[in-house]
Amino acid sequence: MSELDVAPLAELRRRRSAKWRTFPDDVLPLFVAEMDYGLAPPVTAALTEAVRRGDMGYPASTPELGKALAGFAGRQWGWEIDPGRVTAVTDVGVGVVELLRALTRPGDPVVISPPVYSPFFDWVPETRGRIVEVPLTRDDSGYRLDLAALEAAFATHPAAYVLCNPHNPVGRVHTAGELAELVRLARLYRVPVISDEIHAPLTLPGAVFTPLLTVPGAAEVAVSVVSASKAFNLAGLKCAAVVTAGSRMAEVVSRFPADPDDRVGHLGVLASIAAFTEGDAWLADLLSTLAGRRSQLGDLLRDHLPQLSWTPPEATYLAWLDASVLGRDAEPRDHFLTKGRVALEAGTRYGAVGSGYVRLNFATSPEILTDAVTRMAATMP
Amino acid sequence: MSELDVAPLAELRRRRSAKWRTFPDDVLPLFVAEMDYGLAPPVTAALTEAVRRGDMGYPASTPELGKALAGFAGRQWGWEIDPGRVTAVTDVGVGVVELLRALTRPGDPVVISPPVYSPFFDWVPETRGRIVEVPLTRDDSGYRLDLAALEAAFATHPAAYVLCNPHNPVGRVHTAGELAELVRLARLYRVPVISDEIHAPLTLPGAVFTPLLTVPGAAEVAVSVVSASKAFNLAGLKCAAVVTAGSRMAEVVSRFPADPDDRVGHLGVLASIAAFTEGDAWLADLLSTLAGRRSQLGDLLRDHLPQLSWTPPEATYLAWLDASVLGRDAEPRDHFLTKGRVALEAGTRYGAVGSGYVRLNFATSPEILTDAVTRMAATMP
Repeated sequence: MSELDVAPLAELRRRRSAKWRTFPDDVLPLFVAEMDYGLAPPVTAALTEAVRRGDMGYPASTPELGKALAGFAGRQWGWEIDPGRVTAVTDVGVGVVELLRALTRPGDPVVISPPVYSPFFDWVPETRGRIVEVPLTRDDSGYRLDLAALEAAFATHPAAYVLCNPHNPVGRVHTAGELAELVRLARLYRVPVISDEIHAPLTLPGAVFTPLLTVPGAAEVAVSVVSASKAFNLAGLKCAAVVTAGSRMAEVVSRFPADPDDRVGHLGVLASIAAFTEGDAWLADLLSTLAGRRSQLGDLLRDHLPQLSWTPPEATYLAWLDASVLGRDAEPRDHFLTKGRVALEAGTRYGAVGSGYVRLNFATSPEILTDAVTRMAATMP
Repeated sequence: MSELDVAPLAELRRRRSAKWRTFPDDVLPLFVAEMDYGLAPPVTAALTEAVRRGDMGYPASTPELGKALAGFAGRQWGWEIDPGRVTAVTDVGVGVVELLRALTRPGDPVVISPPVYSPFFDWVPETRGRIVEVPLTRDDSGYRLDLAALEAAFATHPAAYVLCNPHNPVGRVHTAGELAELVRLARLYRVPVISDEIHAPLTLPGAVFTPLLTVPGAAEVAVSVVSASKAFNLAGLKCAAVVTAGSRMAEVVSRFPADPDDRVGHLGVLASIAAFTEGDAWLADLLSTLAGRRSQLGDLLRDHLPQLSWTPPEATYLAWLDASVLGRDAEPRDHFLTKGRVALEAGTRYGAVGSGYVRLNFATSPEILTDAVTRMAATMP
């Protein structure tokens, strides 16, 4: 394993993505989920060749993308995907939205478990659904699904449950046992489960990711939405995939708009194929690097910011920090931005239960991470 | 002006887009709307730099994209766009679909004018609308809007009219006078007009493109959807823009899903900015090149395929050929594919009125174009 490099800050600032164009240059941007590492070499090679050839036309995602994803899922998780059951979509959000459109009618209740990725709160009303919140439960070991509360909600027959697996922003990797119970409930109450598994390849050393569709019985009630975009840092290339394993969910996907892959990024397809096919070694280096940053962040918080508490994430490069000592709602985020010139996400973006929290992206260099925590520490009253 | 080069066929076949991956290698693909030329140098430069920097994160489209588009539209057509009224979307299709969602209710009639770009027939049912066809009318000078029939349809108060301006697949550039009458009717009957203007930069020498929003009074009833993707050959990069000029249409766009530009390709944004800002010279060469191919195609058809008739397009690189001598429906397309190994689009993709037609993409080299027509001619009974 070798640690991934990060370009100098002055170089990073020449990126034109939202991470680097939202705040002025005196702010360290640790908010949006983009990493500061370079691309995996096979991805760079695929993109460079496409640019050289002027290969920017309509995407041809099938069947190559499905085969590449199936190979990756098999090697990483022992998940056997039928490449014919892989449908390319613009991104995970569009995949979830189209699934909700196909599964729900206006006004239908849709269950989500905050604190959870903020667009979940947008996707449900976009499809005219009604959000039913069943928050994660929390104990000394961190957050987990509240299966008893989910059963109570499922008993009211919501139109769908949108799972985040692993769970952003808290970094929880739901266990095989928890997911088995979730599937039992979904089958019992006939609640379709849409599993956002975009962070799966970012499961860090010490945890084991369970693809929902590998849980016995899940094929009948569940559908997964996956992407190379988070682990390989390709959010802007617009390629994700909806995966089914059972006939009922395949029928749901068959009701998607005509030619959904017309709306997929061609370079996203090419980069995803390269990542899924030849990206394992780079990904191993990435996970090792992120485990190092996670450990470093723990040390930094202990030494400089003991007022904040956290549970180190089992997956993702996102730290969910309890900063309620600084106030409620988005006050901690505003505090660190204004006084420390460090941009974090406000916990309230992930639901009202996120009041007083901030989400910090630690997929950066040791130096930038140290600088950020030092700046934050200097602001503390 | 200099003619744009086309790479050797063996090189083109290494592109991985739908154009080059749909048919076996013995077929000349002149079907989908992708060009065989290389990219505009400023676009290549922007993409190369982004790949080098690993700049693949969430797009930051505003306000730079709007400013670049406004500059381009001002120089090309004297169209004054307010950059603040530009909303990035995944592609023109997503823009039209979101506008239809905001403008219509399930079951509402939506008017289109076939023969017209085939996804128009998908977008309306995707948003649960009901298609009302008001075909183009035709005389010796070619196709044009049937304004009398449109008035009759507008009098029944459809929820929207989706205009194709210039009109794919027939290549008609609607005149300022026709568009003024269309706007008068739209205002009189209060019918919102969505103008797909993706082919506007491909208006060929001899014609003058009129942006719908430059027609007096249009701002109140019309919205335009534009993109650099067609003229700069960037369909796979997923970036288009919805442009409004009046408060009512701005309110419609304000009902779009949260953060629509999250679904836009970051490289599409960067390439579009480069194209709109620094692409004029390359575009002039492209138009000159396409005018040459249009002329060449006329000669080839006259000399080798007099059985087919056409009206040379005023815009686009698409030729709409009457091949009804070979049969009805998609028979001519199947004939040329099977017997000539030339892939064209079947006219029926553009509506029932396209029966017996084929659409041929002439944005290629003189050699490939000659080869294609020669192959087609050799199949004639």
